[in-house]
Amino acid sequence: MTTKFVTPDSVWADIEKVRAVSPLVHNITNYVVMDVTANALLAVGASPVMAHALQEVEQMTTLAHALVLNIGTLSENWIEAMLKAQRQANKLNKPVVLDPVGLGATEYRAETISRILNNGDVTVIRGNASEIGNLCGMVAQTKGVDSTTNAENVIEQAENYAKAHNQIIAISGATDYITNGTTTIQVENGNAMMGKVTGMGCTATAMIGAFLGVNENAYLATVHAMIAMGIAGERAAQQANGPGSFRNLFMDQLYSLSAADIDSLMKVPDYAAAA
Amino acid sequence: MTTKFVTPDSVWADIEKVRAVSPLVHNITNYVVMDVTANALLAVGASPVMAHALQEVEQMTTLAHALVLNIGTLSENWIEAMLKAQRQANKLNKPVVLDPVGLGATEYRAETISRILNNGDVTVIRGNASEIGNLCGMVAQTKGVDSTTNAENVIEQAENYAKAHNQIIAISGATDYITNGTTTIQVENGNAMMGKVTGMGCTATAMIGAFLGVNENAYLATVHAMIAMGIAGERAAQQANGPGSFRNLFMDQLYSLSAADIDSLMKVPDYAAAA
Amino acid sequence: MTTKFVTPDSVWADIEKVRAVSPLVHNITNYVVMDVTANALLAVGASPVMAHALQEVEQMTTLAHALVLNIGTLSENWIEAMLKAQRQANKLNKPVVLDPVGLGATEYRAETISRILNNGDVTVIRGNASEIGNLCGMVAQTKGVDSTTNAENVIEQAENYAKAHNQIIAISGATDYITNGTTTIQVENGNAMMGKVTGMGCTATAMIGAFLGVNENAYLATVHAMIAMGIAGERAAQQANGPGSFRNLFMDQLYSLSAADIDSLMKVPDYAAAA
Repeated sequence: MTTKFVTPDSVWADIEKVRAVSPLVHNITNYVVMDVTANALLAVGASPVMAHALQEVEQMTTLAHALVLNIGTLSENWIEAMLKAQRQANKLNKPVVLDPVGLGATEYRAETISRILNNGDVTVIRGNASEIGNLCGMVAQTKGVDSTTNAENVIEQAENYAKAHNQIIAISGATDYITNGTTTIQVENGNAMMGKVTGMGCTATAMIGAFLGVNENAYLATVHAMIAMGIAGERAAQQANGPGSFRNLFMDQLYSLSAADIDSLMKVPDYAAAA
Repeated sequence: MTTKFVTPDSVWADIEKVRAVSPLVHNITNYVVMDVTANALLAVGASPVMAHALQEVEQMTTLAHALVLNIGTLSENWIEAMLKAQRQANKLNKPVVLDPVGLGATEYRAETISRILNNGDVTVIRGNASEIGNLCGMVAQTKGVDSTTNAENVIEQAENYAKAHNQIIAISGATDYITNGTTTIQVENGNAMMGKVTGMGCTATAMIGAFLGVNENAYLATVHAMIAMGIAGERAAQQANGPGSFRNLFMDQLYSLSAADIDSLMKVPDYAAAA
Repeated sequence: MTTKFVTPDSVWADIEKVRAVSPLVHNITNYVVMDVTANALLAVGASPVMAHALQEVEQMTTLAHALVLNIGTLSENWIEAMLKAQRQANKLNKPVVLDPVGLGATEYRAETISRILNNGDVTVIRGNASEIGNLCGMVAQTKGVDSTTNAENVIEQAENYAKAHNQIIAISGATDYITNGTTTIQVENGNAMMGKVTGMGCTATAMIGAFLGVNENAYLATVHAMIAMGIAGERAAQQANGPGSFRNLFMDQLYSLSAADIDSLMKVPDYAAAA
């Protein structure tokens, strides 16, 4: 695969599919971000559902197009629900996205990520640079759930990890990096204001779930989702007076993204170089 | 009862009572919608409280004007809290509103609704067409928590169910239907944008709780609440650029609804025909 | 200490420190307010984290600059997590802020507050007048989580309690009162619209946590946090059309508070009298 496959048209095609199919995204996620995540999924055209009871996660995953696991506010029964849902998704060949929120902050988060990765397959892991650094065995410090390093410092390890584990990894930051170990695409869309609204990273993870629900090429789906997030964020930031107005403008922009927006704003250096 | 009792004046009288009394609405609801629900209740003039511990639900229900049960993000101890609070509400003759979120998606949700309905009385059940269809024994599919059918396809069964069970049922949709088995009123207020914001259905359920807290005629209270929701939604949609701005405008509109708004915007065909 | 130490400059110095240090605030708080609290902490420049698992609360508190405990939606394992985190904070001499949400509504809340106060130290307790009245042994009724009395009616008891327990108490209301038993400062900033948005009180508590994270003088930090909240609220209210727009404007204002805003808007009568 070369990056010439990521074009404004390929991004737009997935957005149109999300709007047409309205993929059901089953989120087992943290309490803080449920509202913003559900709203972003609705805004982009997907259908969010949250369900964490052991009694129903298998059935919900069976109905869903994709499963999103997020360890932001852990507890034991939620972890068991994640593991059960993951096994069901694996059994049915449904994509699974994992957000290792705060990995590096506590041992419990490290153990939980290990349990999930030993339990079965994960299609995509998305995190900030601290989280991905820790995933790859670096001892990057995290500050709670906020990153203390840059994607540039962990991308090499992430590529090695992705290759060794046959894994797609997305690192969010000023520049996003999406790698499958062979190809790495940089996405320069986005705006620093996204870091001033809680749950924007978690929302990117859920957005990847929506795109995985309509595109069997998981790598492209991940890149497309990050581009869509970034462009909506940029457009929102242009009009925002701060993080409060930004959040709503972001939802409005996700809802109204057009082919022309993607065309004019997509910033993928490899694509530009190839064009 | 004939529908001539639902007039702009009757709606407005309840809104004024909500603002004057500020009924305490005890919500045992799902994690996703707690923020939007609490904010909508505050905006309309009510006083929301969320409490789910077995140790305190009876006392909280005792203080409250109405109890709202919502099965959106179930787990066993939350169900037990719902059942305990419901028994207390029944004992004290306080109204109970039930939102069967995602009924039809998993067996666990069906079992939970059965447990609640077998546990005691529920004054009003509000859901989308898929949820109400499933409640009435149809095999309507649901897509997670989103409806896959229209209210028109389930209203007859809902009327039969309401009559058989002495139950008020509200079906949300492009047109809302509120039935007690004898009378069915259609409310044509609302806007499709409401479906693009998470928790608007759950918010309608909580809003019914607020109106039940100030009007002993539960059927009229339910109709009034749906009209107030719909008009606030319509007015918000006129100014919104998408679901982000819509949500805030909706809160602003709920907060500032006036008698003139109700007068000019209420769309109840039976009332119009009778007038 | 005399109130002349609270000046626009002292408030502004703490805001600048929050922005520079970005203190990590560990919240064990209620489900309803997690979103608004995290967003307000980010907007003011702090770094929020929510974690409640017994397996990780000690490590998270160890990383944090301050611990915030909030009893809004209790259950047994959350209480145990609060107690464990509190002991760790005490051991490491980190500040602890407590929000006794709904104290007076149920016995369970009273028992929980007793358990926390018997478990170890709490640096600051912030509540509305009903909650603080109940804390001080008055039989003030609460209406769920909303106050049914005024700060003026409980301030004397609060001062006695603060002196007897070597405790800082902040009472939110039309006028806020912050006392350590010896000194009591009134803050007249704020706007009634803050009561129409869920979680603004809880947000004030978390904001105190952020300021405690950068100022070792806990009393001044508390006063400064209440002033910053109040001024952001006032500025937001000037432009708001209702609680929906208010909430976002509040975040924007917190994010963009300037020295000039504090200078022109700070309303601390004792300071004005001393000036």
